Amino acid sequence: MIDAPPPSVSKRIIRALLGAPIPTSKAHHERLSPLLGLPVFSSDALSSVAYATEAILGVLILLSVAALQYQIWISIAIVLLIVIISISYQQTIHAYPSGGGSYIVASDNLGPKVGLIAGAALLIDYILTVAVSVAAGVDAILSALPHLKDHIHDAPVTLSLFFIALVAFANLRGLRESGSVFAVPTYGFIISMLVVIGWGIVHILQTPAGPPQVLAPMAGKEAAFPLMFIVLRAFAAGCTALTGIEAVSNGVPAFKAPETKNAGKTLIIMSSLLSVLFIGMGFIALHMPEHYSAFRIVEASDPKYQTLIAQIAAFGFGQNSFMFYTVLAFTAAILVLAANTAFADFPRLASLLARDGYLPRYLSRQGDKLVFHNGILVLGAAAAALIVIFQGKLDALLPLYAVGVFTAFTLSQAGMVKHWRRDKGAGWKRSAFINGFGSILCLVVLCIIAFTKFFEGAWLVLILIPMVYGMFYAIKLRYDSMSKQLLITEAPHKPSGHVALLLVPRVHRGTVAALEYARQMKGECQAVHVTINEKALPDLQRKWEQYGEDVPLVVLPSPYRSLIQPVLDYVDQIRSDRPGVLITVIVAEAVSTKWYQKLLTENVAQQLKHALAKRKNVVVANTRYFLN
Amino acid sequence: MIDAPPPSVSKRIIRALLGAPIPTSKAHHERLSPLLGLPVFSSDALSSVAYATEAILGVLILLSVAALQYQIWISIAIVLLIVIISISYQQTIHAYPSGGGSYIVASDNLGPKVGLIAGAALLIDYILTVAVSVAAGVDAILSALPHLKDHIHDAPVTLSLFFIALVAFANLRGLRESGSVFAVPTYGFIISMLVVIGWGIVHILQTPAGPPQVLAPMAGKEAAFPLMFIVLRAFAAGCTALTGIEAVSNGVPAFKAPETKNAGKTLIIMSSLLSVLFIGMGFIALHMPEHYSAFRIVEASDPKYQTLIAQIAAFGFGQNSFMFYTVLAFTAAILVLAANTAFADFPRLASLLARDGYLPRYLSRQGDKLVFHNGILVLGAAAAALIVIFQGKLDALLPLYAVGVFTAFTLSQAGMVKHWRRDKGAGWKRSAFINGFGSILCLVVLCIIAFTKFFEGAWLVLILIPMVYGMFYAIKLRYDSMSKQLLITEAPHKPSGHVALLLVPRVHRGTVAALEYARQMKGECQAVHVTINEKALPDLQRKWEQYGEDVPLVVLPSPYRSLIQPVLDYVDQIRSDRPGVLITVIVAEAVSTKWYQKLLTENVAQQLKHALAKRKNVVVANTRYFLN
Repeated sequence: MIDAPPPSVSKRIIRALLGAPIPTSKAHHERLSPLLGLPVFSSDALSSVAYATEAILGVLILLSVAALQYQIWISIAIVLLIVIISISYQQTIHAYPSGGGSYIVASDNLGPKVGLIAGAALLIDYILTVAVSVAAGVDAILSALPHLKDHIHDAPVTLSLFFIALVAFANLRGLRESGSVFAVPTYGFIISMLVVIGWGIVHILQTPAGPPQVLAPMAGKEAAFPLMFIVLRAFAAGCTALTGIEAVSNGVPAFKAPETKNAGKTLIIMSSLLSVLFIGMGFIALHMPEHYSAFRIVEASDPKYQTLIAQIAAFGFGQNSFMFYTVLAFTAAILVLAANTAFADFPRLASLLARDGYLPRYLSRQGDKLVFHNGILVLGAAAAALIVIFQGKLDALLPLYAVGVFTAFTLSQAGMVKHWRRDKGAGWKRSAFINGFGSILCLVVLCIIAFTKFFEGAWLVLILIPMVYGMFYAIKLRYDSMSKQLLITEAPHKPSGHVALLLVPRVHRGTVAALEYARQMKGECQAVHVTINEKALPDLQRKWEQYGEDVPLVVLPSPYRSLIQPVLDYVDQIRSDRPGVLITVIVAEAVSTKWYQKLLTENVAQQLKHALAKRKNVVVANTRYFLN
Repeated sequence: MIDAPPPSVSKRIIRALLGAPIPTSKAHHERLSPLLGLPVFSSDALSSVAYATEAILGVLILLSVAALQYQIWISIAIVLLIVIISISYQQTIHAYPSGGGSYIVASDNLGPKVGLIAGAALLIDYILTVAVSVAAGVDAILSALPHLKDHIHDAPVTLSLFFIALVAFANLRGLRESGSVFAVPTYGFIISMLVVIGWGIVHILQTPAGPPQVLAPMAGKEAAFPLMFIVLRAFAAGCTALTGIEAVSNGVPAFKAPETKNAGKTLIIMSSLLSVLFIGMGFIALHMPEHYSAFRIVEASDPKYQTLIAQIAAFGFGQNSFMFYTVLAFTAAILVLAANTAFADFPRLASLLARDGYLPRYLSRQGDKLVFHNGILVLGAAAAALIVIFQGKLDALLPLYAVGVFTAFTLSQAGMVKHWRRDKGAGWKRSAFINGFGSILCLVVLCIIAFTKFFEGAWLVLILIPMVYGMFYAIKLRYDSMSKQLLITEAPHKPSGHVALLLVPRVHRGTVAALEYARQMKGECQAVHVTINEKALPDLQRKWEQYGEDVPLVVLPSPYRSLIQPVLDYVDQIRSDRPGVLITVIVAEAVSTKWYQKLLTENVAQQLKHALAKRKNVVVANTRYFLN
């Protein structure tokens, strides 16, 4: 090992950025209590209150100010949905103690085809989770620090891309899901939100009720949208609150024993908190005095736009108060954390799909930081593309969201029904009924989302899911075909001989060293010179007699002055004269130490290798000689 | 040759665009009479009247309208310069019947260092010739068809880049300098210009002289510029008329016998025509009624701007008359032809410099179209860069021009003096005096140009010439050092043995075929497997026992899951255990037919080759197996 050359500069830079490699033997997971499990698994679900309530109001206001009152009923419906789906997933936790992601549950019970639909839906949704969470986090930051917009060019896009890069980088470095680290932003968010909401409610209850608001209908709008459609659309918008609710069921093995019990507890705590925050925010949003009220939320393009959370915090504690900044800081933090969970989940799911042959195999390879680095890069690039395409606008991204989640929910719950029917353990009928009900409910919600948000963007996801599904199958077919082609069906074909062709453009130290290499091969050895400059030929031939060690020199004319074509022709001639022969073309290549020195030499080996790429039984070997 | 695979799509596209290759045996030149020699060699010189007169007036107007009268004296001085330099070059023609370019004459007589200064100056000037000629040609086109500016985005830049690409492409296709083809634009330009000038003079002489023009001084300007400086600067601007005058002397062998006599005749005809056109244009420009007069020329940014030639044609025959379009069409054509001559000269000079080791060697390689394709591409890219940097503005490019030309003139004439002093033939003193006078005159003009145009852009060329010169020397030093390093100073180092390492990620048709290849090598053979997935190992070992033909299988652990690092470590271990051994690492690579299929396979061979690049005595050979 003494003379291993030092690593290159680029390698050393990457190593310095990403830190020391992590051996496979260290692939352990810390075991989590519910207290620490909540931060790890709930950031995606809890952080959705940062946009879900606002999204509902943003739809209702299209109808009329009076219609904002429907928000209460929609919120209640969504909380009911949270409860039912949580109960459904409780069952998954107990049935799949080793982790019951939708892809696994659906594949297991409904066959690989259905599993792949769930997989496609989930992959798309993880990308959207990153884009939506980061965009919402940037909105929170810009609500707290609106001046950033003046100092940063296209702040929403620039900051979003920065955070995506940051989270991707942290994951490439091998960031582990760590309960204690994640606890600060998650509990900070929960506590500060509870304080703001609690204080806001006290505030509202203490204020004597003003005169009943004159709820003027929004002129010209209500005629265009039937009431039912708008209410359903608002409900669909609110369903984004449910994204991430399945996270706990994926990660049961990460909990302390008894795993299923602790995971179940965590799910209950999370659902309760989500319901409380969601209902509380809705209540305050409706009862704030008008100048803080929901009217503001439709003007997302207004330079003075603030998120609903910022308005609620300002209502309770005043603009620019300590609590105002605190709650927004924790909101941004938990949203970035939510993006981070997708960076753990997407590469993991992609690696499962790659292992099964539905995605390129290298997505299943863990890098030296013990992370699926290729998956991280793919996710980061896809989310960044979404941010750029949608200009970092949260209200443009949200309609795409939740379609994938509810597809996966529906299929996973349906899979659970099949599971119970096969299992037939104690109380299986009750369990099957619960999951069946959940599945049908999710399917209904999915239809509502797809129908009411179709033209706003859901169509894109509805097209993408079958496209990704088709890609899975195309890749699988290709890998199957490759495996079949690579089967050893007959005894290996013995070559009829071997010819080593040593290219000799000039006779120098490098070519002479290459000759020594050529002599290490069995069979025939020929030196080949392509002559472009006839005048230099006699000198070359004389030198070859001196140094060529009796290896014959073949001189190839080049009427068109190409260095490559005569070699190709000569190789083809040997192949047709002596069928079944193996040919090695040996090229001596100069290796310079500096990049600018490389500009002075032509890399004939690379060109030749490319040109010979389609010929069977021909190998290009290039020896190197070193210059300083 | 039966089973040569069909050429790739990209190769076929290039072939279709560039046409069939031309064999070296067809490298003949047509022999030219003076009648056909004129079109080939004079386009650069003659076309300069399209901008030189205008440039003089553009400077004088800075002083005052009255100062425009100096134009006559400046024109006479420039015609004198043309005469003296032509006589000087007559001598070069006779002394260098095989072609006396400035680089050759200066190197021959004043040593390679001086020759390289001339070479650097000329290379820069050829790039400027392309940029200036094309920009002037586009000005002519836009004068004729001003509406193009509305339809083409940034028309001056876009059209200039289009013409550069067109001429570069024609040269890559192997366009030959053909007297009969070039005759049409050249004689078309000469004749139409003579008609326009002749008719214009008749027109002026017939018109009764109006009242003497009130020549108001331009307020506030004359104080800032001393008279002498402005007049010299106008003279310097007019010196661009002399660019290209040396072309005939470079190409003496292209003429019919007696070559020198015919070349001499051509030079005389060209100089006379140039003088006539130049003086004639100056006369009309000064005597046109005011609304056509030189006042217009300062407003190059005005959307209604027309070149001086366009104004003169309009003066004689009317705007939008047949002659107006004819003369502008031929002007554009001869300017594009002038750019074309640079595309013949630059690659030729670059190939001479490359042959002598002052530029990368591949610039001296002729492609299969018998042209120096690399030189053409470099010139095209450099000229395009100039157009983009200077926004296609002729008046910004002109101050850079002529510095290089007069540097080359000065050195070439000085070289001729040395030539005569050594030669001492009949009348050598007279010849030496003529060239000496020419050389000193050119030096004086060079100083005037450099001084008066320094801040307008000449400084850039004055910096670039020594920089290019320094680059020549750096390249030469590197090539000399390479040659020295490649000298065979001792008997070639005999390797102590050979080890073939066959990488076996899995056992399949491809690896088994690679094993057959590995057996074609002398010495030891080992199969190497890097294990990442421990579970797959027993199956692999069993299969290897079946197909491995008793070649031992070395299993390398990979604690950090890298496929590359364990191989590197193992190679280093062999190298330190057995010094002087040659190692071949054999990698079987899958070759897919479609590009998207390649996305599914990793190219480990390439990564490995890169990683092993710095290790001596290690060769990566990759065998290929084909998938469909």
